[in-house]
Amino acid sequence: MAAFQSLLLSLLLFCLIYEAVSQSVLRFPSYRNDDDLFCGSWRLSVETNNAGNWMSVPSRCWSYVEEYMNGGKYFSDSEIAASDSLAFAQSIEIGDNGKDAWIFDIDETLVSNLPYYQLHGYGSENFDEFSFNKWVELGQAPALPASLKLYKKVKQMGFKVFLLTGRSEYQRSATVKNLVSAGYSDWERLILRGISDEGESATVFKSKKRSELVEEGYRIHGNSGDQWSDLLGFAVAERSFKLPNPIYFIP
Amino acid sequence: MAAFQSLLLSLLLFCLIYEAVSQSVLRFPSYRNDDDLFCGSWRLSVETNNAGNWMSVPSRCWSYVEEYMNGGKYFSDSEIAASDSLAFAQSIEIGDNGKDAWIFDIDETLVSNLPYYQLHGYGSENFDEFSFNKWVELGQAPALPASLKLYKKVKQMGFKVFLLTGRSEYQRSATVKNLVSAGYSDWERLILRGISDEGESATVFKSKKRSELVEEGYRIHGNSGDQWSDLLGFAVAERSFKLPNPIYFIP
Repeated sequence: MAAFQSLLLSLLLFCLIYEAVSQSVLRFPSYRNDDDLFCGSWRLSVETNNAGNWMSVPSRCWSYVEEYMNGGKYFSDSEIAASDSLAFAQSIEIGDNGKDAWIFDIDETLVSNLPYYQLHGYGSENFDEFSFNKWVELGQAPALPASLKLYKKVKQMGFKVFLLTGRSEYQRSATVKNLVSAGYSDWERLILRGISDEGESATVFKSKKRSELVEEGYRIHGNSGDQWSDLLGFAVAERSFKLPNPIYFIP
Repeated sequence: MAAFQSLLLSLLLFCLIYEAVSQSVLRFPSYRNDDDLFCGSWRLSVETNNAGNWMSVPSRCWSYVEEYMNGGKYFSDSEIAASDSLAFAQSIEIGDNGKDAWIFDIDETLVSNLPYYQLHGYGSENFDEFSFNKWVELGQAPALPASLKLYKKVKQMGFKVFLLTGRSEYQRSATVKNLVSAGYSDWERLILRGISDEGESATVFKSKKRSELVEEGYRIHGNSGDQWSDLLGFAVAERSFKLPNPIYFIP
């Protein structure tokens, strides 16, 4: 009986010690790893535009960004962005003159270039325009699921949808082919960079194009983009929705 | 000897099972726990202003917010926000007419009301103005460490510092006492809500006050605040810096 009691006691002691040790390692794993803590804060600074112009993902965050993009967080963040957008869209009373507009950016907004960046280091490599343009020409970027759902819903509600992208006019046919194969259709206008727009920052180019829409009488209610240069400047939308993108920055 | 072997075996088995059970809960908490995934995305939507007007922390995120505030992430996020701000401040060439300005909000920007919210459910309780104002009268909110460092540095660089807060004039002396005991000094002006400002949204009140500074000839380079209503509207700063706050929203 004494042996049984001492067995029980040993078991209890051992497991208490085990629990104490394992909790001290595991309780707050994300806080024990300085890189995770730093990279979470770095990502927030990028997404809030506190970071301003940034050139590349800090090297200590390369694996963090890879995990972020593939591990579920990226898709979750995109979904909440889309549900915020939808809640706002549903609050708008659509007029009968066909002038209620919603703007979408394309790359990392309607379609995802994740398959490209999975082969090119998730923002850890210098941007290779030649190689990226070859990927664009393939027209195989998949839809970002949350954006595709949002796109269909705002169209159903009666918004006129404008696609405003930093892609160039010479990429129009590849872009249309890609959009269609990703499930998009019936946009009002696809606005790409013409020759006279080359050299302008995305902020200026997109603001000018939004101004033209306002001059045509459109009320720009919502604007969805993964870059602050999609959203800021002048003639900004009533509400702007920042989609996540920790891979690259466009001024 | 056989008893000893069976004791060892029991211990081993028990602990293997224990480890299996505890790891299935703890290995990737952020990806295995839907609440963590959702709440991380919810926090991003709040910090990017995608969420727009929000009333309270979703109940499934109460413990997430508590852990965020106390577990290191909040302070890390504040520090990166301050270092982004400092990098921008250092890029400004300060003129010799004393008109280069930086604006700071007070609550959750210069000082932290975390000790209050630790006793009031981290945003899970309805805001109790009476109880919060009693806390403000105590004047015991500690400095947010990253903001105190930033404050001292921008002052050293020659910025004129304006404190622009939604607190009311009747709270001036408690506010000054609190700021001083938290380590702040030598601001140019402390701007609180006067009687004629009551009833205005923070966005409008703060925009009007910024406008007055612009009319006085100040160049508002930087603006630090934990609410988008500190930062948006008109007469906005050249660069705005969003400090984290997942506890409450002020329109």
